[in-house]
Amino acid sequence: MPTTLGQNQYGKAGTRVVRITRDGAVHHIKDLNVSVSLSGDMDDVHYSGSNANVLTTDTTKNTVFAFAKKHGIDSAEQFGIHLARHFVTSQASIHRARVRIEEYAWQRIETSDPQAAKKHSFVREGRETRLAQVTYDGDRWEVVSGLKDLTVLNSTDSEFHGYIKDEYTTLPETRDRVLATRVAGRWRFNWTDDAAETPDWQTSYEETRRHLLQAFAETYSLSLQQTMYQMGARIIDHRSEIDEVRFSLPNQHHFLVDLEPFGLDNDTAEGAVYFAADRPYGLIEATVLRDGCEARIPVDLTNL
Amino acid sequence: MPTTLGQNQYGKAGTRVVRITRDGAVHHIKDLNVSVSLSGDMDDVHYSGSNANVLTTDTTKNTVFAFAKKHGIDSAEQFGIHLARHFVTSQASIHRARVRIEEYAWQRIETSDPQAAKKHSFVREGRETRLAQVTYDGDRWEVVSGLKDLTVLNSTDSEFHGYIKDEYTTLPETRDRVLATRVAGRWRFNWTDDAAETPDWQTSYEETRRHLLQAFAETYSLSLQQTMYQMGARIIDHRSEIDEVRFSLPNQHHFLVDLEPFGLDNDTAEGAVYFAADRPYGLIEATVLRDGCEARIPVDLTNL
Amino acid sequence: MPTTLGQNQYGKAGTRVVRITRDGAVHHIKDLNVSVSLSGDMDDVHYSGSNANVLTTDTTKNTVFAFAKKHGIDSAEQFGIHLARHFVTSQASIHRARVRIEEYAWQRIETSDPQAAKKHSFVREGRETRLAQVTYDGDRWEVVSGLKDLTVLNSTDSEFHGYIKDEYTTLPETRDRVLATRVAGRWRFNWTDDAAETPDWQTSYEETRRHLLQAFAETYSLSLQQTMYQMGARIIDHRSEIDEVRFSLPNQHHFLVDLEPFGLDNDTAEGAVYFAADRPYGLIEATVLRDGCEARIPVDLTNL
Amino acid sequence: MPTTLGQNQYGKAGTRVVRITRDGAVHHIKDLNVSVSLSGDMDDVHYSGSNANVLTTDTTKNTVFAFAKKHGIDSAEQFGIHLARHFVTSQASIHRARVRIEEYAWQRIETSDPQAAKKHSFVREGRETRLAQVTYDGDRWEVVSGLKDLTVLNSTDSEFHGYIKDEYTTLPETRDRVLATRVAGRWRFNWTDDAAETPDWQTSYEETRRHLLQAFAETYSLSLQQTMYQMGARIIDHRSEIDEVRFSLPNQHHFLVDLEPFGLDNDTAEGAVYFAADRPYGLIEATVLRDGCEARIPVDLTNL
Repeated sequence: MPTTLGQNQYGKAGTRVVRITRDGAVHHIKDLNVSVSLSGDMDDVHYSGSNANVLTTDTTKNTVFAFAKKHGIDSAEQFGIHLARHFVTSQASIHRARVRIEEYAWQRIETSDPQAAKKHSFVREGRETRLAQVTYDGDRWEVVSGLKDLTVLNSTDSEFHGYIKDEYTTLPETRDRVLATRVAGRWRFNWTDDAAETPDWQTSYEETRRHLLQAFAETYSLSLQQTMYQMGARIIDHRSEIDEVRFSLPNQHHFLVDLEPFGLDNDTAEGAVYFAADRPYGLIEATVLRDGCEARIPVDLTNL
Repeated sequence: MPTTLGQNQYGKAGTRVVRITRDGAVHHIKDLNVSVSLSGDMDDVHYSGSNANVLTTDTTKNTVFAFAKKHGIDSAEQFGIHLARHFVTSQASIHRARVRIEEYAWQRIETSDPQAAKKHSFVREGRETRLAQVTYDGDRWEVVSGLKDLTVLNSTDSEFHGYIKDEYTTLPETRDRVLATRVAGRWRFNWTDDAAETPDWQTSYEETRRHLLQAFAETYSLSLQQTMYQMGARIIDHRSEIDEVRFSLPNQHHFLVDLEPFGLDNDTAEGAVYFAADRPYGLIEATVLRDGCEARIPVDLTNL
Repeated sequence: MPTTLGQNQYGKAGTRVVRITRDGAVHHIKDLNVSVSLSGDMDDVHYSGSNANVLTTDTTKNTVFAFAKKHGIDSAEQFGIHLARHFVTSQASIHRARVRIEEYAWQRIETSDPQAAKKHSFVREGRETRLAQVTYDGDRWEVVSGLKDLTVLNSTDSEFHGYIKDEYTTLPETRDRVLATRVAGRWRFNWTDDAAETPDWQTSYEETRRHLLQAFAETYSLSLQQTMYQMGARIIDHRSEIDEVRFSLPNQHHFLVDLEPFGLDNDTAEGAVYFAADRPYGLIEATVLRDGCEARIPVDLTNL
Repeated sequence: MPTTLGQNQYGKAGTRVVRITRDGAVHHIKDLNVSVSLSGDMDDVHYSGSNANVLTTDTTKNTVFAFAKKHGIDSAEQFGIHLARHFVTSQASIHRARVRIEEYAWQRIETSDPQAAKKHSFVREGRETRLAQVTYDGDRWEVVSGLKDLTVLNSTDSEFHGYIKDEYTTLPETRDRVLATRVAGRWRFNWTDDAAETPDWQTSYEETRRHLLQAFAETYSLSLQQTMYQMGARIIDHRSEIDEVRFSLPNQHHFLVDLEPFGLDNDTAEGAVYFAADRPYGLIEATVLRDGCEARIPVDLTNL
């Protein structure tokens, strides 16, 4: 046979597990979408169809539900660590487990009845989806957290000029534009060893998100690349548990509408009217590293 | 010719207009998706292709942008009223205009710099999309507001039993289930006449949303229909400007996972683990009317 | 209580049922997405939460699966008739049933092995989704069929001029444009009575689709409205079983790119380059009726 | 500064270019979605916001349109080669260009008028999206083609048994199941050098697609991994221009419905009824390599 099996992985994607915890009448909720990928001694299942080394994807799904009950869900990262450790240590044929989790946030509904406050009613936050990815090979851990669909906008303090003009350039320079993007970001922790203490995952997420937003808001921008770099650098400056940040930022163009044909001056100084375009869009991507650290987060959020 | 033209309408859908207003260094943002539908003397354009009576959809788009500058955007409802009045009164061939608007909410980003507070940086709220529809025929106004994608969940105080058992029934009864839905709601105002004062659209929206959420949270539920009716009745009880409410509520099933095969007791009393299913889903729809009022909101949010 | 229950309906949406039929080694496949809506004596479940008159949505889902086995799926329309009749005639509290079905088409995979031809391997067609809706109130039937997501394009023989020019009009007239749309259409059959013979649903669909496409291709267009009317009229002219057609046609704008800044003449006569825009888009909707027939298909494919 | 810039790239995504070519009255259509990513001397734009080395994303978009006119679009791969070469060779600061293209296929509409046949009317094929990615660093080419959203199903000749049973395993073994997946595949060409002749991209795509489908249809399956490997091996066996294939295959579960409670035997031998589930789903991924070749296609189609 002139062909060989290369890298392979398998598992169950999209297991939506909701865990309610009751503290008397007060309930708490964790709402996750868990995807497991396993690798190991899998030549036979590809070459001959023998499943002798295969832990089925149905079993990985069952394990997610059972672990949500047995261990609870303290954080997405901690839950991923429980699962990844289990798959690698319990099955000789599994050498590596990667657990990816999306987390959906919920707020409590304020009721008019003061007795009912903070009990068991929730409204889903829609602002961003929190992400966590835990990879374990039996020896070393890699934890990457992140978020997607966090849309931000600066309505001024953004310029764009001084770029290359070639024969296909028609874009006019601007000293006052809207800068908007839907942030997809990931950050890698330097915790890799069971012997070391894990970060406080919840605090880390909240603070990283806060720094990211503040850097976006506080940077006087000459390019989206510059703003993006500041967002990453700010995180690494303030969060010692993080060594690498990767962003993928679509430039959500807000074009000034030409209102001159209608006798109107669409001047930004007085506040202007913009057309928010969908496509095409600029896409700006970069990694920011703590000095001396190696990049490990893949370059592309999507491939093809 | 054995065929006749029936109801027809046309216009531009999906005009995404963003209006920034500057109050010194402090900026305000309105972010709308506007769709216009016009009807009138349109036989010729269908029968012969003559466009003599047609105000082009491109022109309706231009008008949306121009009006955002000329009139500003106080509320989606008020903006829709400006537009609908313009189309009907400025063109003899246009007899009816309907303006539908989606509004996306933004929050300010808190910065670390106290001087920079509340200036020009925003993060998009993702919780629900606000809706407004204004229809005008030159004589009478109809304003319907609403929202979609507001996801709510009660983790207890929901039962389901006592239903019909036929030969295809296998569902076990339950005294303690999760009740979750993604609310799509619309409510019709009794303001129809230019001579009357318009409601305070912003306050009305906020209060209607609050009553809707509180009714969901405070109703001990024996069926989603009962909860839905309470949500509508609460709105009409408290908001005299509204005569009709229509809901379309998918029952987002959260199934208790059977953990017995794994020696685990998934008891709700201690807090349980659920599988959040996508499809199929129950779909519960109803209108709640102020006594003596007529229903005018169409029965279906989607047709086919 | 100052409020009253208005129109209401409930049921299970999104039941994805796949039926394989074996004819020896040759298999056949039907792939449907079935949504059931029931109405009747439902005051109690809304006012008090009593489910005594409620056939659960879980039961309607079970019935869909059981009927797929018992009756097979000859066509989506026939399957909907079986289901609607069952719900209305088997439960005293159910007075009206509406069954909506999406059907996904599959083609056979041609294999290299002549022995294996036409057996049990399929590739899904993605061109359009076929739709069927059956409504029954115990007395009269209404069957509406249709399709969505059928995207068509004429690269010439489309003009647009002679329209109203007001103060907001900037669109230049054109004698040669691309006309493209993603067809959503529905057509209502005049079969309403059990005593009459039903149409051949499969032939009717294929022929209606063919006439629709041919009318689009063969109409020299002066407006999308004119093309749309021809599509509806052609169907009614050729298909005596159909009395009403409703279309909702987004005008998928293909803008001629201005290549003059790059020294290129983007002349349509030689074949041109277009930018295919997403939003905003024109939306053109109309009903075409057989003379003397009444319109019954709702005006909007989506509401808010 | 304690941080460093890592890998970075930028460009315009989602440029939808439609090219009509006229051959007398007969028109031809190419419909692409083009995304460009550039890298090079980009430290300054990230560190200081200087755009002196930046060819704007707006210019890359203009270049796509201009090249569609100047060079035409023979194939997505050839078009990508033109573009990538231009960006790298025309700008000193650009060292690497990657062009990703989605292609949407169109069929001609058959008309009833024989004179009008094969002219200028098209209906969009929806079966799969064709993909092409061209990367150039001024020296070496990498071309990866592929497809997504090609959904296939075998209604028999699929078994699944003999897998690991651990404490969380409940899945019953089966000797006759439905095997369905929505294929996402990519394949890398061994053409890397301008001096060598390029493959016939169109023939290569058609034949690769055909082998992929036939291998799916003709493999008696003991696991989806085995079927996937056969699909990759078949391509490499028959297409000497391809050295590497990567698949990502969601296992679209079709569960046999338990109809016993309704007194029905849902036996596969006579043809059965299945529930087509959405989530969770198995996800099976692997690379198949020509012996002695190196893997270069990234492991994940999506990251986080």
